[in-house]
Amino acid sequence: MNIAVMGYGTVGSGVVEVFFENKELLEKRVRQPLAIKYILDLRDFPGDPHEDLLIKDFARIRDDAEVQVVAEAMGGVEPAFTFTKACLEQGKSVVTSNKELVAKRGAELLEIAAAHGCNYLFEASVGGGLPVLHPLHNCLSVNHIQEIAGIFNGTTNFILTQMIEEGSTFDQALAQAQSRGFAERDPSADVDGHDACRKICIMADMAFGHQIDPDAVPVEGISGITMEDVAYANLWGGVVKLIGRAVQEVPGGPVSVRVAPYFVPGGSQLGACKGVYNAILVRGNAVEDVVFYGQGAGKRPTASAILSDILECILLGGTDPSAGWSREPGMIADPDSQITAAYYRIKGCTQTQIEKAFGSVEFLTGDGVPSGETAFVTGALPERELVTARKALEGGGAEVLGKLRVLSI
Amino acid sequence: MNIAVMGYGTVGSGVVEVFFENKELLEKRVRQPLAIKYILDLRDFPGDPHEDLLIKDFARIRDDAEVQVVAEAMGGVEPAFTFTKACLEQGKSVVTSNKELVAKRGAELLEIAAAHGCNYLFEASVGGGLPVLHPLHNCLSVNHIQEIAGIFNGTTNFILTQMIEEGSTFDQALAQAQSRGFAERDPSADVDGHDACRKICIMADMAFGHQIDPDAVPVEGISGITMEDVAYANLWGGVVKLIGRAVQEVPGGPVSVRVAPYFVPGGSQLGACKGVYNAILVRGNAVEDVVFYGQGAGKRPTASAILSDILECILLGGTDPSAGWSREPGMIADPDSQITAAYYRIKGCTQTQIEKAFGSVEFLTGDGVPSGETAFVTGALPERELVTARKALEGGGAEVLGKLRVLSI
Repeated sequence: MNIAVMGYGTVGSGVVEVFFENKELLEKRVRQPLAIKYILDLRDFPGDPHEDLLIKDFARIRDDAEVQVVAEAMGGVEPAFTFTKACLEQGKSVVTSNKELVAKRGAELLEIAAAHGCNYLFEASVGGGLPVLHPLHNCLSVNHIQEIAGIFNGTTNFILTQMIEEGSTFDQALAQAQSRGFAERDPSADVDGHDACRKICIMADMAFGHQIDPDAVPVEGISGITMEDVAYANLWGGVVKLIGRAVQEVPGGPVSVRVAPYFVPGGSQLGACKGVYNAILVRGNAVEDVVFYGQGAGKRPTASAILSDILECILLGGTDPSAGWSREPGMIADPDSQITAAYYRIKGCTQTQIEKAFGSVEFLTGDGVPSGETAFVTGALPERELVTARKALEGGGAEVLGKLRVLSI
Repeated sequence: MNIAVMGYGTVGSGVVEVFFENKELLEKRVRQPLAIKYILDLRDFPGDPHEDLLIKDFARIRDDAEVQVVAEAMGGVEPAFTFTKACLEQGKSVVTSNKELVAKRGAELLEIAAAHGCNYLFEASVGGGLPVLHPLHNCLSVNHIQEIAGIFNGTTNFILTQMIEEGSTFDQALAQAQSRGFAERDPSADVDGHDACRKICIMADMAFGHQIDPDAVPVEGISGITMEDVAYANLWGGVVKLIGRAVQEVPGGPVSVRVAPYFVPGGSQLGACKGVYNAILVRGNAVEDVVFYGQGAGKRPTASAILSDILECILLGGTDPSAGWSREPGMIADPDSQITAAYYRIKGCTQTQIEKAFGSVEFLTGDGVPSGETAFVTGALPERELVTARKALEGGGAEVLGKLRVLSI
């Protein structure tokens, strides 16, 4: 069985490294010899131990009938889409960590795989090495999935952890993340929530059966989080986390998807998820709450997921007919109708005015709270009622200094 | 496709309940109609909605060629073993939540299943509804597994949580667990660690390929845990948890397995696992640390795992050739050579004497520490050196009031 690896960056080189290190184990699992025949990359790697496998021409992989499984670790939509499609059309299974491609065009590629009797698998696209898509599809599929809520992005979780535990400002924490290699020079895809959005969309696609367009999801990032927000979360008994969340209250009903920073209870599994780790909660109507936790990125953890998918392609033989979801967009719930509790930090109004607007709330008080402002957590209300209440206070001259939703998991 | 359910207690009735509730979903997944044809139980259930399916004679299941998959939810070794063996010999796949049977005779039943082209699956035997055996076998099998450490028993975790959060004594917490239905009248299988032992053995069997006899594993329960131990854990920054642990430092090398209460860091995923929940950490040489968290027991969560295994039997068709492990016991590491840090609570000796015996230690001091005693955490030492050091102090007249190992995860 011959494998090709496309892209020899962090992920691709991890796949090659772990493949050779654990080769005996992999071959025992599938009961046949395995080989990496090609590594595709436009760059040169002089002196690399696998220099003999490096090629620059994709057509050699596409046209070589001996290559049965391809690991795409290039990232981005193009040329990854074109290459993946060409491989699938040749009946070669493709596995990938490319969340952008899966989130944007997964349904289409799954259809092409099914039409050609091969598989398109992407465990590594969500949660890095953490097994979560496979258990969702295989172990939890006997459940109506009601909710998925998770910390999907290690970079932002590292930044928030620095703010919470070290008292860093957002800018300081971002600089630390960049100096330690956890954030890119242009950190916007992580910090603005787009990476987390792709991942919650992939999970929702699989759980609810319809492709959800990441561009249709309301996304808020973490760059506006202040040290005051972090301190108020602590007073409330929690921490600030960037959460991707998808909810389907009624089986087959509308799905609401959102990415935003939330207050999360400190002692919960999501609250205890620190640094570059990911934690993903799945709630089913029989299993109740299950949480998957692990390294959400990194060379070797991601390689673990890709190699596992390679073995699954070999063991499955033909297409898994239950994999995949419809290209038709599912029913998306009106974001303004979603029900959520929220934290506000406001100046220029009284507690009486606040409770008149929001109903009964929990005021956050304690040592070190700045004077001249009031912070509180509302009860669970529809988003539009939160907006109305806020406008009523602003109309009376109040100024909102901070606002975050509250996850009651 | 016809299913039989053996045992109509908590687990069996949960399987039937969720089956009918989610039947459409299950049938969609396997693309064929499904039916429960028999429910075996010696008791009568007058007025039960599924009374027409109830039978008392096992032979009707064994001899009915229309029954292809059997869910064994009887518990105990006999007659569950005899019935399971008879079903497998007829080519019927069997799925179960019966950890005692799998831990004692799993290898044998897996061999029989393989010889008859069917499957023996037992996801529900570890972690209740939490998917952990399937991900270990399917998603993490590309890793050399180095360590498994988990909270496998919800009853003891509920008791310890009550002691930690409510300040209950062990006896008070046990009574609360019994009154809430989380502990049996005779709680010894849970409290003494035997239930956790069966589960860590099943995970170690699967991870390391050899049947480990639960009777050969050193097991300590939680009945000796005092409120002082809980308070010292808090001073150290952690909590007391009953941990099942299996370590294989070198691939193919000896495996050390132990069940005992440990100090666990409070902010870790295992430390954050409270109440009746389970949390299981798996460390692989590529994926690093992964944690699976969920309800470790309960009617509907356990039913989720059993139904998932039923679907897997149907989807697999023939035997999964890589499932199973050798009946030959693997190499068990000498428990006295295991390296661990430990907490001691001692009276009748000085800090100088303690450091002379144990080397450099971390003394646990703070408000409310009783006078006349000293508590500390040692560095990582072989078990036999801990014993020697303790004996040296006891020889000098010291008395050990408490001792627990420390998990540095």
